[in-house]
Amino acid sequence: MSQTTPEPRTVYLDHAATTPMLPVAVEAMTAHLVAVGNPSSLHASGRHARRVVEESRETIAQALDCRPGEVVFTSGGTESDNLALKGIFWSRRDSDPARTRILSTAVEHHAVLDPLVWLAEHEGAEVELLPVDARGRLDVDAFREAVGRDPGSVALASVMWANNEVGTLQPLDEVVAIAAEHGIPVHTDAVQAVGSVPVDFAASGVDALTLTGHKVGGPYGVGALVVRREVSVTPLGHGGGQERDIRSGTLDTPGIAALATAVEAAVKARSEHAAHVRGLRDDLVRRVIEVVPDAHLHGAPLEPADARLPGNAHLGFPGCEGDSLLMLLDARGIECSTGSACSAGVPQPSHVLLAMGCDDEQARHSLRFSFGHTSTVADVDAVVEAIGPVVERARAARR
Amino acid sequence: MSQTTPEPRTVYLDHAATTPMLPVAVEAMTAHLVAVGNPSSLHASGRHARRVVEESRETIAQALDCRPGEVVFTSGGTESDNLALKGIFWSRRDSDPARTRILSTAVEHHAVLDPLVWLAEHEGAEVELLPVDARGRLDVDAFREAVGRDPGSVALASVMWANNEVGTLQPLDEVVAIAAEHGIPVHTDAVQAVGSVPVDFAASGVDALTLTGHKVGGPYGVGALVVRREVSVTPLGHGGGQERDIRSGTLDTPGIAALATAVEAAVKARSEHAAHVRGLRDDLVRRVIEVVPDAHLHGAPLEPADARLPGNAHLGFPGCEGDSLLMLLDARGIECSTGSACSAGVPQPSHVLLAMGCDDEQARHSLRFSFGHTSTVADVDAVVEAIGPVVERARAARR
Repeated sequence: MSQTTPEPRTVYLDHAATTPMLPVAVEAMTAHLVAVGNPSSLHASGRHARRVVEESRETIAQALDCRPGEVVFTSGGTESDNLALKGIFWSRRDSDPARTRILSTAVEHHAVLDPLVWLAEHEGAEVELLPVDARGRLDVDAFREAVGRDPGSVALASVMWANNEVGTLQPLDEVVAIAAEHGIPVHTDAVQAVGSVPVDFAASGVDALTLTGHKVGGPYGVGALVVRREVSVTPLGHGGGQERDIRSGTLDTPGIAALATAVEAAVKARSEHAAHVRGLRDDLVRRVIEVVPDAHLHGAPLEPADARLPGNAHLGFPGCEGDSLLMLLDARGIECSTGSACSAGVPQPSHVLLAMGCDDEQARHSLRFSFGHTSTVADVDAVVEAIGPVVERARAARR
Repeated sequence: MSQTTPEPRTVYLDHAATTPMLPVAVEAMTAHLVAVGNPSSLHASGRHARRVVEESRETIAQALDCRPGEVVFTSGGTESDNLALKGIFWSRRDSDPARTRILSTAVEHHAVLDPLVWLAEHEGAEVELLPVDARGRLDVDAFREAVGRDPGSVALASVMWANNEVGTLQPLDEVVAIAAEHGIPVHTDAVQAVGSVPVDFAASGVDALTLTGHKVGGPYGVGALVVRREVSVTPLGHGGGQERDIRSGTLDTPGIAALATAVEAAVKARSEHAAHVRGLRDDLVRRVIEVVPDAHLHGAPLEPADARLPGNAHLGFPGCEGDSLLMLLDARGIECSTGSACSAGVPQPSHVLLAMGCDDEQARHSLRFSFGHTSTVADVDAVVEAIGPVVERARAARR
């Protein structure tokens, strides 16, 4: 096995792709790695493991203000999104064949968009990806119009809590209010929101919410779909029926314990954490624009503070290729992203920026810096020191 | 969080439900838990993580004699089975609508049976669960007849490598030979086989093979579907398309590293391990029958040794309820199972024993003791000491 710890000098500003595990979550995980017992076994070791799982469920419920029975453990965000979209679509359409429409936004994560494409191509769903404004915020009027056109035909709506690329928070309250008038269930991908902005499941009024471990300081490979008990979800996988018959597969006790520990810690520290990363982020944006005057922030402005994720800085650098910037910064030990890691490797302009009205050129000249619990002022200093020469070199490469 | 480590005195004989992680696997996992980097990210931390994933793939390929590109990482056995059955069924039927039949056995794990039921109920599959003999071994003539009846209509066959309840090894060579005559792909659930009996993917001739971490001394929540590149698999989930576009979701670097470490260690130690657990198992069976003369072994006899899993002892105790035996042993610190943990909690007679010709009474009076890498002679001694009084008490409870 190769050495995997990045060099100590690494400036890691890609927390939206994945954030290091919190020490308390590592501790919870390692404590349970050495225990044995399948939570479905009836003997003492099995019951011990079951208790850990159920206590973890309660911990998450308390942190997110849902009922423990509403937490369905999954293998992560992609599975939770697939389960919510397909499972609720199938269930709603089966109970009324007229419900064939799914309303969503043009700026969703691929874990939402790709299942929607599949549902459209294979399951007869009519998917409407509603427009966003120049800041990446859903056009609520368009959503209202789409619902009002024929409310009885809408199977569900799916609107992310906060955008993973540009950090824009979505008007979920308004979406829920409109949908509620017609009894339309709402799913939200809250992967980027939990631990960064206040997430209260009950108060939000959504019917299903996706979260995942490795974005909140928990482990990879484990997440949850929080889903109201009143909402019927057709399972995607079939086996032991471990999670309310919605999700099958042996429960990952250590991962679940670590997820719960991370969610609890992240939610508890949220306000302080948000202030910390917001301070760093604001400083970075201000200082980068001082060095590169034509650089500009994509998404919502820094004020009011509740319009975007506190740790997200998505910057456009005219005349540069984002991929070149990324590689030049990487060579200096600074790690960031051009967009979603989940579709990285395929260099194409971001669908989020295109939906916001950027042209191809604008959609390619951007970088996302995302802050997290390990971020420091030194990280900002490093970017500010590097960005001038890096942008100059990237521009020279284009000429 | 509650105390999860079972008391030191626990006699854990339920390794088929889940086995403790090997120390080397715990070490691999914990080393990577503190690293950061999404394997899909382009920067150095991402590339480090990607290298860990690809090296893990090579390690598994070497251990199981497949090509690295044939290893598709999943969240575990249930997902791998669902992916193989539905993914291959859909792909084969899409390329020829006449292919609607799936041949399998009556003794598969629920992670195979339940997807088959779903495919029959929702996707028009005609599922034939072929009979087994009194030892739980597939009736090869019945399989040959089922194929021969109309080979062109068979989408795939799925036959487990070794049964999880009674430990019987299936005649996979014969199944593959018959299927190969007609180009029918064969999937096998080898969850119980890897690390216990020789598993060589290339030599086996199967097209797809399921394995999971927590049955080979690796972690929960991670497994693989080994699938020949020539076999087309329709994905079940949709998102980033990380694994050959067959499986989406952020790759679980620490889990994958630990899985690879466990598979490598388990395969390397297999022969010695098998001899060790076989010795303990044979001893247990012999001595239990000395104490309880009408107790009897289900499944294949102890000789020849290659007809059943070396660590499996599945015993019938006439006049007893398996659940009572389990609870009475548990009260004495001895942990075993009445069947599959994956369907535990629902007290119904085992479908495996019923398929083997047991009546309801016989199917309910059984216990599975399964040995693993932490098992010792003292475990056997403890069972032998307890079993007499426990059986007596369980019988008294029935009178």
